[in-house]
Amino acid sequence: MRKNKLKEIWAGGGAAANGWLSVPSPYVAEVMSHQGWDAVTLDLQHSPIDIAAAVPMLQAMSAGGVVPIMRVPWNEPSVMMRALDAGAYGIICPMVNNRADSERFVAACRYPPAGIRSNGAYRGTIYGGADYLDHANEEILTFAMIETKDGVANLKEIAETPGLDALYIGPTDLAFAHGHPPKHDNFDGPVADLIAQIREAAHAAGIRAGVHATRTDYAAKMIADGFDLVTPTSDMRMMTAAAAGILEELRAARE
Amino acid sequence: MRKNKLKEIWAGGGAAANGWLSVPSPYVAEVMSHQGWDAVTLDLQHSPIDIAAAVPMLQAMSAGGVVPIMRVPWNEPSVMMRALDAGAYGIICPMVNNRADSERFVAACRYPPAGIRSNGAYRGTIYGGADYLDHANEEILTFAMIETKDGVANLKEIAETPGLDALYIGPTDLAFAHGHPPKHDNFDGPVADLIAQIREAAHAAGIRAGVHATRTDYAAKMIADGFDLVTPTSDMRMMTAAAAGILEELRAARE
Amino acid sequence: MRKNKLKEIWAGGGAAANGWLSVPSPYVAEVMSHQGWDAVTLDLQHSPIDIAAAVPMLQAMSAGGVVPIMRVPWNEPSVMMRALDAGAYGIICPMVNNRADSERFVAACRYPPAGIRSNGAYRGTIYGGADYLDHANEEILTFAMIETKDGVANLKEIAETPGLDALYIGPTDLAFAHGHPPKHDNFDGPVADLIAQIREAAHAAGIRAGVHATRTDYAAKMIADGFDLVTPTSDMRMMTAAAAGILEELRAARE
Amino acid sequence: MRKNKLKEIWAGGGAAANGWLSVPSPYVAEVMSHQGWDAVTLDLQHSPIDIAAAVPMLQAMSAGGVVPIMRVPWNEPSVMMRALDAGAYGIICPMVNNRADSERFVAACRYPPAGIRSNGAYRGTIYGGADYLDHANEEILTFAMIETKDGVANLKEIAETPGLDALYIGPTDLAFAHGHPPKHDNFDGPVADLIAQIREAAHAAGIRAGVHATRTDYAAKMIADGFDLVTPTSDMRMMTAAAAGILEELRAARE
Amino acid sequence: MRKNKLKEIWAGGGAAANGWLSVPSPYVAEVMSHQGWDAVTLDLQHSPIDIAAAVPMLQAMSAGGVVPIMRVPWNEPSVMMRALDAGAYGIICPMVNNRADSERFVAACRYPPAGIRSNGAYRGTIYGGADYLDHANEEILTFAMIETKDGVANLKEIAETPGLDALYIGPTDLAFAHGHPPKHDNFDGPVADLIAQIREAAHAAGIRAGVHATRTDYAAKMIADGFDLVTPTSDMRMMTAAAAGILEELRAARE
Amino acid sequence: MRKNKLKEIWAGGGAAANGWLSVPSPYVAEVMSHQGWDAVTLDLQHSPIDIAAAVPMLQAMSAGGVVPIMRVPWNEPSVMMRALDAGAYGIICPMVNNRADSERFVAACRYPPAGIRSNGAYRGTIYGGADYLDHANEEILTFAMIETKDGVANLKEIAETPGLDALYIGPTDLAFAHGHPPKHDNFDGPVADLIAQIREAAHAAGIRAGVHATRTDYAAKMIADGFDLVTPTSDMRMMTAAAAGILEELRAARE
Repeated sequence: MRKNKLKEIWAGGGAAANGWLSVPSPYVAEVMSHQGWDAVTLDLQHSPIDIAAAVPMLQAMSAGGVVPIMRVPWNEPSVMMRALDAGAYGIICPMVNNRADSERFVAACRYPPAGIRSNGAYRGTIYGGADYLDHANEEILTFAMIETKDGVANLKEIAETPGLDALYIGPTDLAFAHGHPPKHDNFDGPVADLIAQIREAAHAAGIRAGVHATRTDYAAKMIADGFDLVTPTSDMRMMTAAAAGILEELRAARE
Repeated sequence: MRKNKLKEIWAGGGAAANGWLSVPSPYVAEVMSHQGWDAVTLDLQHSPIDIAAAVPMLQAMSAGGVVPIMRVPWNEPSVMMRALDAGAYGIICPMVNNRADSERFVAACRYPPAGIRSNGAYRGTIYGGADYLDHANEEILTFAMIETKDGVANLKEIAETPGLDALYIGPTDLAFAHGHPPKHDNFDGPVADLIAQIREAAHAAGIRAGVHATRTDYAAKMIADGFDLVTPTSDMRMMTAAAAGILEELRAARE
Repeated sequence: MRKNKLKEIWAGGGAAANGWLSVPSPYVAEVMSHQGWDAVTLDLQHSPIDIAAAVPMLQAMSAGGVVPIMRVPWNEPSVMMRALDAGAYGIICPMVNNRADSERFVAACRYPPAGIRSNGAYRGTIYGGADYLDHANEEILTFAMIETKDGVANLKEIAETPGLDALYIGPTDLAFAHGHPPKHDNFDGPVADLIAQIREAAHAAGIRAGVHATRTDYAAKMIADGFDLVTPTSDMRMMTAAAAGILEELRAARE
Repeated sequence: MRKNKLKEIWAGGGAAANGWLSVPSPYVAEVMSHQGWDAVTLDLQHSPIDIAAAVPMLQAMSAGGVVPIMRVPWNEPSVMMRALDAGAYGIICPMVNNRADSERFVAACRYPPAGIRSNGAYRGTIYGGADYLDHANEEILTFAMIETKDGVANLKEIAETPGLDALYIGPTDLAFAHGHPPKHDNFDGPVADLIAQIREAAHAAGIRAGVHATRTDYAAKMIADGFDLVTPTSDMRMMTAAAAGILEELRAARE
Repeated sequence: MRKNKLKEIWAGGGAAANGWLSVPSPYVAEVMSHQGWDAVTLDLQHSPIDIAAAVPMLQAMSAGGVVPIMRVPWNEPSVMMRALDAGAYGIICPMVNNRADSERFVAACRYPPAGIRSNGAYRGTIYGGADYLDHANEEILTFAMIETKDGVANLKEIAETPGLDALYIGPTDLAFAHGHPPKHDNFDGPVADLIAQIREAAHAAGIRAGVHATRTDYAAKMIADGFDLVTPTSDMRMMTAAAAGILEELRAARE
Repeated sequence: MRKNKLKEIWAGGGAAANGWLSVPSPYVAEVMSHQGWDAVTLDLQHSPIDIAAAVPMLQAMSAGGVVPIMRVPWNEPSVMMRALDAGAYGIICPMVNNRADSERFVAACRYPPAGIRSNGAYRGTIYGGADYLDHANEEILTFAMIETKDGVANLKEIAETPGLDALYIGPTDLAFAHGHPPKHDNFDGPVADLIAQIREAAHAAGIRAGVHATRTDYAAKMIADGFDLVTPTSDMRMMTAAAAGILEELRAARE
């Protein structure tokens, strides 16, 4: 089975740069898979992408050398199994609030006896290889999102869930749930403290930690702080940020 | 009928900033239509976008306040009429080599007696308004691309075609056809001279001139040089440029 | 944030006319958004429309001035959050049987601390405006469908759910569940009584009531009876009714 | 090969009622195919429908018992052959201006030696039957649209083109081209005269005549006048007309 | 209402041959519906097909004379009701582990009072007929998949669920769950015994049994053993098996 | 630029096995790209595939190691340039009847000065590599279909067209045009003679010859006869042939 490059990066002590896709377009997916990201995540929660749209995106990313991850919209077995069957090498599950949630999440991603995943990885075997079934439980990564008060309260129990590979932080929901303004890139303040606490809990449990960002300097700081994976921006933010800069420059030139 | 803002900008002596879309996605189109561009062009020549994909993109751009333009893949009446029926307010036609080409192009975009456009603007009337038929010949812009040796040789005749509104320059094909490396952003050299020649021919004929670019400073220079419309970049270039920058910054931070 | 016109109509003592879409087509959606409806609902329960198809429909409706509502297929958080992220200004949830159901429904539609909605309204902010997050809990409407015996039995408790804005009636399921023929447009009889009972319960609880119809005279009567929103027909019924009439008229003319 | 019911209707002295589709939706197509139309035409000229969208529409109409016709966007062999391969039993070709146009049109629709149609009717054989190749040249109907000054000038020559089955009239383009307001349903006046002239030319040449309408009484009159096929409305007009009526009735009831 | 041919085959003592589709393509569906299968199942669990893709597939199969079945991805009411509304005449539900699971499954497929299915079979009435509502509970088949240890342990209780029509076996998950290699076509051994046990339990409870295969000889044996329905292969396996054979033959010829 | 493996096979004296796709599905394309074909052709002439559908198919084939070829529907520059921009490494052009046709075909596939292809290979550079522009004229193959009387009459002139790489034979159209039954797999007879004549003309002109088949033994014979590329079957034929065999075997077993 094709190796999961994130595991190799982590084994080597490195941190991974994760691209983020919200446009349901195989063309965007293919281009992004050739830019140098270590992984690229398809967001099925806060974007128009659904499983049907994701499949040709995963296909278009196959030749690009990035680890394909999918953030599912909810902790539901059907969507997670369908994401994996389509060839995802990692699942980010939102709103993991307690040990039961994380166990349910992990079970959906693992074949028996470790879990309840149903056999039929129609594209997993194309992308992963003929021996997919033998190694999928090891190669496929599970990321539990900690973004609620309950999630923080049950941090240790969640992080110690057998088969869980990483915690992933969505800073705006985390802030929101704790009564703070839902902002990204919290260099300091109470949300920054929560983020550090989650990262430490992951590492204490022997698993990895990832975090979402919108500023590159913040993403760089998160790597320096010890995060194993950072998502520095998204496809759409790259476009809107660039457009703003270009149009301002043109306007200035016209005046 | 809804006014064509490009005509208003030009009447006021201004130059227009034109966005450029190659991703067949209404989501990208909608977001781009809210960034401040004066016009946004859907490229049906060198991208996966076709008419069927363009229609929901035009719909998604309706509320955004940009002038919707379409570059068609070829000087064929059917695709131009279908683009206009769908609500395009401007057509950029590639490979206009002589007066016959430009007349054929313009005829396809104009209702009788000015041209041969067939009646049935199913979305033109939604976007443009109930009196679309009365004003379409005036509001809709026609851009002939000059990008071959023949096109340059017949510049004056083309520019003086009745009903033609503008010349548009694709610098790489223009360079290619004249034996130069197909590059954008020609600040000087023989391709820069050709570009200036085309701009001057347009203005001499009393029509407008537009040009494609990939660098904002070049686009700004083109405005300074007198171009009426510049396309400083594309959706995909914005993403790839941003990704390159972010990943380099992250890599530097990791080392 | 863009105001919800239904709230303005209701504040002014008016009743709203709601269009109903079952064809997964942005073209139908755009045209329907320009016909004069106060709101237009996309039905994701009993039609081929799903979230992926709904997004370009919502985009196509943006310029039309109707309040975009979505009926979701089931009381599941993921589909409701995805509908809202895409820009829906109201959710109709089927099969709300008790207080727990209605609380679960409302929670999925409200940001913390009122609910558990996750942050990431990728299109909500385009359609609603940059301050979407500040006002979404107030502007977005929640309609609980009462259509089972349990739903009727728990009417008061459901209607008094904090954050619930309205009850909505699907007369055929309501009739079915109570052992009556599943018909629309119940001018009188036991189903009419149930419908009146639900409307009264809504108003007693200080919330709104809406009802589904297929005949305009019935819809008009429902407004006269005090309903705050009526759905007099659907896209498909309009077509089939018109076709039947036209073909009968032509046949008569031929004989 | 499945018989073409239009030919049977005509052989029996009848006139056909033709439905008209502009929404690219197999759901609309399937429903419309069950309403009692004799034929249903997919419009690929003035609508978002293209060949790719038309194929599932034709499939959805297969069980409905209507003759599937396609109006192509232009007199181009490739789109006509693709329409036929997909199972169309009739082609309406716009803008036939002279004998060369009509010969080119007919040739594209006929297998050798009658024409140049290429073999490969991947869906024609499913819908038509295993002996499709033996009878396609007889069963498939060709409708040339007369809608320009040239078309009227060359009426006789066009109508006498071997292999042409019918003339079809788009009244708005016809009016437009002759300097009249582009309106449907011309009960009298110069456009009505042109329409009668075309009908008579068709019949004089021993072929059929069809006409487009938006009012049922006009369509009925056209049948009474001797037209062999009328299109009394379209999918979209049925919806907008119904919506206008319903909303007016509701508004009146509210006041 | 159109009769369910599987019930007729079974009433006549026959066994049914079931085709299996994993390609989201109406073209494949239409062609497959004309090959002579008694039923054709659309797999929404282990394939890219989702409800939106399934609808045009069902439409394309309408004229082909096969019973349309859908395997849903999970025991969730919404997807089952949407599958039925779209015209499925049978549902295969994976991972039915106990009586509560099977009751939940059956309830979602039956109108009140037998179940909780919501009224609105927008395509069921087109495909099934105007009296769909009167007979749907009888004509539509429910297949519970037995493929876990719990499922086997609760075999009798599941098989005796009122309204359940059949058990269906996915041999690889069944094997997997019992610690055996996940293989199809178990002619003998412990998985073969489990399969026989499930078939016998179905028949003891007076319901039907179906089984998945990849080899025709195994499928034939299963019929001989008393299975009521066999799925001998899938669309994709037919292609890959044929390609392997053809390429080997060509290679041999070249050497 | 990625090398064209067909040229390498031919340089080594080998013959290529070409797969053939008519299902517009990236899933089928991806699976087929892993079966061992040397090349896989997407048929845009006699199938529902169009350019928009072809792009994700090409993407899905990227990792599979087959040379992606497209048969275009007609000798039109726009569709050929769009096919190449999307990453096709070969174009099969139907109905090449004379030297002018073949020159027009080749010109559309070659950058200046060899041809008139417009610069903008948005996916060609992803699939082919950054130096695509420097080598595309050499790596991309052009196949002219000889399938009419004119085509045979002008065989030598066509075959000698500068820049043309191969002739390709569609036996059914070739037979049709010469008054023979349109059949594949002509082991002998007048169509077999024509096929041999075309192959010889190709080789005499120093270019390659390819042929379409439906039987593997015929394909093998064609290789033995000296053809450089054979298409032994298509995706759809593989399915229908397999289904026929399986169903016959099952039926026999049941009796």
